[in-house]
Amino acid sequence: MTSVLIIGTGLIGTSIGLAIAGAAEGVWLSDADPVSARLAADLGAGVVYDGSFPGGQPADLAVLAVPPDAVAPMLASAQRDGLARFYTDVASVKQSPVARAIAAGCDMSVYVPGHPLSGREKQGPAAARADLFLGRTWAICSTPWASAGAVEAAGWLVAACGATLVMTDPATHDRWVALTSHAPHVVAAAMAARLADAEPRALDLAGQGLRDVTRIAAGDTELWTQILAGNADPVADVLAEVAADLAEAARLLAGDSVTPGSRIPDSRTPDSRTPDSRTPDSRTPDSRIKGIADLLDRGRAGVDRIPGKHGTVSPVFAQVQVVIKDQPGELARLFDVAGAAGVNIEDIRIEHSPGLPAGVAELSVRPAETTALVQALRAAGWAVYS
Amino acid sequence: MTSVLIIGTGLIGTSIGLAIAGAAEGVWLSDADPVSARLAADLGAGVVYDGSFPGGQPADLAVLAVPPDAVAPMLASAQRDGLARFYTDVASVKQSPVARAIAAGCDMSVYVPGHPLSGREKQGPAAARADLFLGRTWAICSTPWASAGAVEAAGWLVAACGATLVMTDPATHDRWVALTSHAPHVVAAAMAARLADAEPRALDLAGQGLRDVTRIAAGDTELWTQILAGNADPVADVLAEVAADLAEAARLLAGDSVTPGSRIPDSRTPDSRTPDSRTPDSRTPDSRIKGIADLLDRGRAGVDRIPGKHGTVSPVFAQVQVVIKDQPGELARLFDVAGAAGVNIEDIRIEHSPGLPAGVAELSVRPAETTALVQALRAAGWAVYS
Repeated sequence: MTSVLIIGTGLIGTSIGLAIAGAAEGVWLSDADPVSARLAADLGAGVVYDGSFPGGQPADLAVLAVPPDAVAPMLASAQRDGLARFYTDVASVKQSPVARAIAAGCDMSVYVPGHPLSGREKQGPAAARADLFLGRTWAICSTPWASAGAVEAAGWLVAACGATLVMTDPATHDRWVALTSHAPHVVAAAMAARLADAEPRALDLAGQGLRDVTRIAAGDTELWTQILAGNADPVADVLAEVAADLAEAARLLAGDSVTPGSRIPDSRTPDSRTPDSRTPDSRTPDSRIKGIADLLDRGRAGVDRIPGKHGTVSPVFAQVQVVIKDQPGELARLFDVAGAAGVNIEDIRIEHSPGLPAGVAELSVRPAETTALVQALRAAGWAVYS
Repeated sequence: MTSVLIIGTGLIGTSIGLAIAGAAEGVWLSDADPVSARLAADLGAGVVYDGSFPGGQPADLAVLAVPPDAVAPMLASAQRDGLARFYTDVASVKQSPVARAIAAGCDMSVYVPGHPLSGREKQGPAAARADLFLGRTWAICSTPWASAGAVEAAGWLVAACGATLVMTDPATHDRWVALTSHAPHVVAAAMAARLADAEPRALDLAGQGLRDVTRIAAGDTELWTQILAGNADPVADVLAEVAADLAEAARLLAGDSVTPGSRIPDSRTPDSRTPDSRTPDSRTPDSRIKGIADLLDRGRAGVDRIPGKHGTVSPVFAQVQVVIKDQPGELARLFDVAGAAGVNIEDIRIEHSPGLPAGVAELSVRPAETTALVQALRAAGWAVYS
């Protein structure tokens, strides 16, 4: 795999160009907005496509980095012009572009739908990053029509971007991202919408938690409306469940008694945890509190299932906490001692404030290696907590 | 203001000790769990309080860094023992502790309620950071009883921690944080709860957005249940509004017609944007899409009103990203090279999935040291992004 044409030099397209700069033989950039394509080229994402390739050969792979509704018409147009041997896209929904591509008469044997899970709340080439996909998940969706060569080309792109490949199919993809991406976006928006009319000084008390919960709600409305409309039913199912839990939490906290017909309509997603809508709530304050605690516990259980290293600690590794002094070479010495003990430190997070005499390093290791690491570090004089 | 007794050496209490180490004449640490107090002392947060102060004088200020329900009994007990001249606390709700303190017969002239807006999803002294409050908001609540000296003492603490003081009163505080902290916590939990029962591979498609939206839902259930129960009505109002918007979004996306009695009961928060529950929805697909776009726009408007920076990167340090190979000694070598260049790495976060050939280490350094670090690492063969 060598030459790549990127169609659409927004955040994702430009980031792909930056990421594969070392791996591809050539990267060409095309965008309906020539200023955007030039900026992407200036950033090092490739060279602007001027309507022809050197030697007259099509690109090996064209990446359609355009909004969901533009994928099918762009694929049809690119195939008419013979721009590439294989095609993939990066849209956040997959069933709808595939159906439209079929309806548009595209050659589906050379097209493999893809979706890097790496959006940002920012848009445009200037927000692009070469490391946007590094270690992130990138879904490639098999179809009954895609050739082995097309799947291989898409897989090459994922690897060249440093992403982790997840093979799935369009329907499964859309159901999964409804839960992990699309519904969370609407939930963030619904929370953030409360701030729009808040008394001004209330936001003086905004903390990091609020920023994190609402961050993605800053995304582009037009793009996200396309995404949600293109995956409507799976998203609606998740949102109805979240709405039911929140309405129930509001009711428990406010202490209202349930009135007939007052429950959220939820025929798609029956929720056996909530009481029947025609039974007045006779629970005691203690059992209402228990209901709130139950929702928080279910939330914790959900967060625990998210893979990766952010926020919560990976469930795969054991954690060892070491008090480290603020002096040169302390961390290098720590890694040396761990290495001499035959322990591979899989991850490290350091909590340290400048000017203070000590901080805490949180080391992640395989559980079986915990004891050896603790003993080695204590023998070398560190205060260790595990 | 000189000597401070910190009662409760969890995340907040220990972080306060670390933050004021340079400003206070003495910091004493007390905790029901002596291991926690010793760890806080080992970290440099102060010295363990052994039941008496040097010279027999009480501390100038006692900080009650305990859960909301423990504030009033702890204040009564500390006042009985004459531990300090003035008192403040850090609980996330204010009306309920104040009412309980009055009921317990506390001297309210020497107590000023406080609340630093700087929680983390982690708990315990090992997660403490001296910069936890730096640039963050810290609410101090005036009461009719607090003396000028008590308010001054609490203000000194806020300044010593590098936080931004917001003066308010308990009722206003509780209404504001219902919107900016407590309701967002439940919203995050309700979204995260959906993940608890998800098909396992769905979470393969978890991205950063999901992690951010749900991060705070990893918080301690017992603590948060206390907080929510102590601020129930204002939180319920916000949650009912969020639930109504999400139920409406689910309905618009699913295209269901509205059936009689199917709306969320919402007498506390009438919502003129949504149709009457007895009117069948006759909107066209286009106007349904418009309804979704409207919610997203309201969310964007809300996010725009949040002051301060988005995301979770420390505002104090510059970040340098290095691609690291998954091989023994790689991190030790990185720290060696940084040390040889005279650069102190203040913080490190590693994004790495086991089994992949490479990950990204995000190094935090003083901005002035960025260039030296980048040059040294590049010279040693690393791919560096800054």
